Amino acid sequence: MTAVLAIGSHPDDIELGCGGTLARHVPSGDDVYMLVITTGEAGPSIVSARVREQLAAAEILGVPRGRLFRGELPDGRVSNYELDLVHTIERAITQTQAEVVYSHGNLDSHQDNRAVAEATWGAARQARRVLCYDSPSSHSFNPSVFVDITSTVDKKCEALNAHSSQVGNSTMASTSLVMTQAGYRGFQARVEAAEGFMPHRLLLDV
Amino acid sequence: MTAVLAIGSHPDDIELGCGGTLARHVPSGDDVYMLVITTGEAGPSIVSARVREQLAAAEILGVPRGRLFRGELPDGRVSNYELDLVHTIERAITQTQAEVVYSHGNLDSHQDNRAVAEATWGAARQARRVLCYDSPSSHSFNPSVFVDITSTVDKKCEALNAHSSQVGNSTMASTSLVMTQAGYRGFQARVEAAEGFMPHRLLLDV
Amino acid sequence: MTAVLAIGSHPDDIELGCGGTLARHVPSGDDVYMLVITTGEAGPSIVSARVREQLAAAEILGVPRGRLFRGELPDGRVSNYELDLVHTIERAITQTQAEVVYSHGNLDSHQDNRAVAEATWGAARQARRVLCYDSPSSHSFNPSVFVDITSTVDKKCEALNAHSSQVGNSTMASTSLVMTQAGYRGFQARVEAAEGFMPHRLLLDV
Amino acid sequence: MTAVLAIGSHPDDIELGCGGTLARHVPSGDDVYMLVITTGEAGPSIVSARVREQLAAAEILGVPRGRLFRGELPDGRVSNYELDLVHTIERAITQTQAEVVYSHGNLDSHQDNRAVAEATWGAARQARRVLCYDSPSSHSFNPSVFVDITSTVDKKCEALNAHSSQVGNSTMASTSLVMTQAGYRGFQARVEAAEGFMPHRLLLDV
Amino acid sequence: MTAVLAIGSHPDDIELGCGGTLARHVPSGDDVYMLVITTGEAGPSIVSARVREQLAAAEILGVPRGRLFRGELPDGRVSNYELDLVHTIERAITQTQAEVVYSHGNLDSHQDNRAVAEATWGAARQARRVLCYDSPSSHSFNPSVFVDITSTVDKKCEALNAHSSQVGNSTMASTSLVMTQAGYRGFQARVEAAEGFMPHRLLLDV
Amino acid sequence: MTAVLAIGSHPDDIELGCGGTLARHVPSGDDVYMLVITTGEAGPSIVSARVREQLAAAEILGVPRGRLFRGELPDGRVSNYELDLVHTIERAITQTQAEVVYSHGNLDSHQDNRAVAEATWGAARQARRVLCYDSPSSHSFNPSVFVDITSTVDKKCEALNAHSSQVGNSTMASTSLVMTQAGYRGFQARVEAAEGFMPHRLLLDV
Repeated sequence: MTAVLAIGSHPDDIELGCGGTLARHVPSGDDVYMLVITTGEAGPSIVSARVREQLAAAEILGVPRGRLFRGELPDGRVSNYELDLVHTIERAITQTQAEVVYSHGNLDSHQDNRAVAEATWGAARQARRVLCYDSPSSHSFNPSVFVDITSTVDKKCEALNAHSSQVGNSTMASTSLVMTQAGYRGFQARVEAAEGFMPHRLLLDV
Repeated sequence: MTAVLAIGSHPDDIELGCGGTLARHVPSGDDVYMLVITTGEAGPSIVSARVREQLAAAEILGVPRGRLFRGELPDGRVSNYELDLVHTIERAITQTQAEVVYSHGNLDSHQDNRAVAEATWGAARQARRVLCYDSPSSHSFNPSVFVDITSTVDKKCEALNAHSSQVGNSTMASTSLVMTQAGYRGFQARVEAAEGFMPHRLLLDV
Repeated sequence: MTAVLAIGSHPDDIELGCGGTLARHVPSGDDVYMLVITTGEAGPSIVSARVREQLAAAEILGVPRGRLFRGELPDGRVSNYELDLVHTIERAITQTQAEVVYSHGNLDSHQDNRAVAEATWGAARQARRVLCYDSPSSHSFNPSVFVDITSTVDKKCEALNAHSSQVGNSTMASTSLVMTQAGYRGFQARVEAAEGFMPHRLLLDV
Repeated sequence: MTAVLAIGSHPDDIELGCGGTLARHVPSGDDVYMLVITTGEAGPSIVSARVREQLAAAEILGVPRGRLFRGELPDGRVSNYELDLVHTIERAITQTQAEVVYSHGNLDSHQDNRAVAEATWGAARQARRVLCYDSPSSHSFNPSVFVDITSTVDKKCEALNAHSSQVGNSTMASTSLVMTQAGYRGFQARVEAAEGFMPHRLLLDV
Repeated sequence: MTAVLAIGSHPDDIELGCGGTLARHVPSGDDVYMLVITTGEAGPSIVSARVREQLAAAEILGVPRGRLFRGELPDGRVSNYELDLVHTIERAITQTQAEVVYSHGNLDSHQDNRAVAEATWGAARQARRVLCYDSPSSHSFNPSVFVDITSTVDKKCEALNAHSSQVGNSTMASTSLVMTQAGYRGFQARVEAAEGFMPHRLLLDV
Repeated sequence: MTAVLAIGSHPDDIELGCGGTLARHVPSGDDVYMLVITTGEAGPSIVSARVREQLAAAEILGVPRGRLFRGELPDGRVSNYELDLVHTIERAITQTQAEVVYSHGNLDSHQDNRAVAEATWGAARQARRVLCYDSPSSHSFNPSVFVDITSTVDKKCEALNAHSSQVGNSTMASTSLVMTQAGYRGFQARVEAAEGFMPHRLLLDV
């Protein structure tokens, strides 16, 4: 039983990045937590809707309401609050005792995602595993670590669809893209469907 | 009107790597040539079949028989003949006056492909464009240059299927993988379907 | 006919980075726009002079006054306003319908240039071409894409010289450096004079 | 229960690279195999001694005689036989049904080690995990994956010492270096002693 | 006789990164200066203690009180003041006439260290040597330049121990880690003990 | 007084890569040796002419006949003899007691140069300094170490011109290219003219 923390800048980032992986951790008996840094208030929807959507999405992945944390940093301006961001993530790690941390990578064209990626590295400096997930806005993303999500890719799509104010408004948040990417990462991992990660630090059990 | 040369280690490598792109060069009026370094004699088929398949595949892409060149290097052992390989490619470039060259990249887990990639760089040292294509055996492939193949991806699949001794014998040469990859590269390029390239040297017309 | 947008942190950055390339786009019938993020008020000159110089330089390259946009971010402190920067660039892209975007690269020792580079990637996430140009303050700059500026390098120098408050005050903004660099990039591109680019994303016409 | 294959160019390479990790696989119930590509006949000792030493070292790590395979490639000239090398490794993988493969990395100043690294990538193209280990002759080695060897570092040293014809003849094969490196990798992994790996492909169980 | 400036975000960073190297510059007759950007007020100690410790540590390395400069940027929030940081470093370089500059690298999981690294590159744009040192929080640190500190590693430990409010409170600031790292870098440099650097720009005397 | 060894695949490679640097070592009292791996017999000239030219070029740089060594590997096919190449370089290092070694880099489009680069790393595994020089056929060359050759760039050109069978037959071996490159590297190094190097391992005197 391991404590797992997934971190995302905005509602739906975690689902896109590692939703299938989280849905595999849950039945393994791991304690899965999610930390969403902003409420996504700069996007095309009202905050209360996004909060509701995020709760529903987490529930689909098997993460109950009490394990979903929300940061209070301003959408789009996270990089102006680097220290607060580190502290927000540190608090979540302390509270959850997370040993496994999933977060953005820093090669990302969205400024919030870059800031969250780099803050995670500082905040999670003692975690046993820090893995960077792919995102529709990442670039030069070269995964070498993969998780087989053949059994959970449907759940991943379902969770993404719970963000109904986003899906349909963006070519970047679509189940069709999710399926294409899962297939491509699956090919790289020699399985049917996968999520890919770049390891920041990965202590491997043998 | 430009002379274009595509180079591959084995029959079907060019189709997988840049078949959709070649199928776009042809109707643009470019002179498209293909150079296949080995006859793929180490694979699961007899040589005469592979030669026939390669001719058919080229024809589907719009490359007539007279523009398909075959090297005579031994399948699997190309790297033992590095200088001959450079000369083989140099001769094809001289003969075709190719200004645009497509070839393997060197981050590839197949020894022949690595050798062909690096020999291309030497042989094509005066070419205006040298672009490395993706391959099922490449790794750490990070394309930044893309060609929209929405209109030719079907032809790419058809050409691949002409290699009937290979398709079905390998998970790596399948139209299903081609479609997944075209979709994923398309997403990266912001079009429906694409092929991705890493530029070795690209003189851009503006 | 394509809409082209060149972005620079300070007056003279665009000229140094891609002045020769812009001067080739103009006679091709492309609509060329320039966006200068700051007025360069921290440099050794008064703002009104720099504005005048920038207008003159743009005109030399063939960019009329109405196509030169100015951002209002503070010179030297651009990175404190990352979201505003993204919005400034997004507005220019929307207004110009730019499909081709030239901007700084992020491996640059000037903080403004790094910020502009990374903001461009976010703001231009749908553009067909995003190319990073070289700068006297860039480091680890490894171009793989080149534009032949043999016919426009003189115009590039002339445009740079229009920034008369800068040229002569810095070893970094000199026509002698421009000529040396054009020659060196030209050698890499196998032409007489060139500008070099690192492609962030380049959809290639074939 | 997993089949694990460790590959090294010369006797003692595996021990130096991943001896501590193998010693942890054994008590976990995994089937651990070793493949040594050459007999190290170019080094300062007779072949029969090196074979004896290798058997003893393997035994210390818990790998019985029947699970130690020897290739027959010539020490120092492995790169001249790239295809044979791929076949040698493929045969070992087929025979052992290995899903986890440890091998050299390709950033290594010894020509045999580079060749073994790259051949492994081809031969193990279907393996679930391919991890590159560090070596005294590797350079630019940047591990992101670690195995805690606190409990087995002594066994690693003991196994290395079994290569008595080498230890003492080279500053590169010494238990003192092993301990220093284990401590440094341990620091990076946040444990007392570790071995570091660069993942070529790692399918992670969650 | 050369002017040397070492820059660190917090008290003890310089000692950890290049303390042994500075202790070699001093007896060579070089003028060695230290610039500490923050007072480390966010750490587990009061500021006056840290100032005292820093003075003592500098003295141990041979840097007298008058050559120790302190910036006034807020610990943990340095990246919010990027321009001020550049100016702080520029002033120190002007005042000391430093030709050799040691500073953080930018691949560091602490936000202050990243900011100091990148600001150094801008501020030291005319310095003959700019070398990035390793830090306990750096990642992907791959040194290619080394300084032999066999004769000064004890002094480095002594200087580190002068930061008595830190040593013992962190596994990252310990003489045991210093000794392990010195041994590992020493192995890489083929000497007994070394400090490793990644060169930003290094004009070499021959 | 230091022993310095420069290694090149073909006559004129050393002059192009580090001729200006060698010409500075000589008056410093260092013992400078050159090792040319092939006689360049594949190029456009007879061997005896190339040998004569090489002797003349070395003499211009200040390297007397007795310090110029010639390997006997076949031009264009060096990579087929990797072990012999390592031994050739090892013998030269042993004989000269070289502590400083200049050689090709491995990112080079000529197969001989790649092989020489990588063999140098193995053969010079105990040397204090191993620096990779730039070459007209190198690619992705990103120097961080520089030597000021303002005072010797003329001698470099003169030495290159001694290879009269080559100069004039290739755009790659011309004094005009040498001057352009020296100016560009000089700009990067903040001096008038420079040669650039990528350090493989550099133990720095302080």
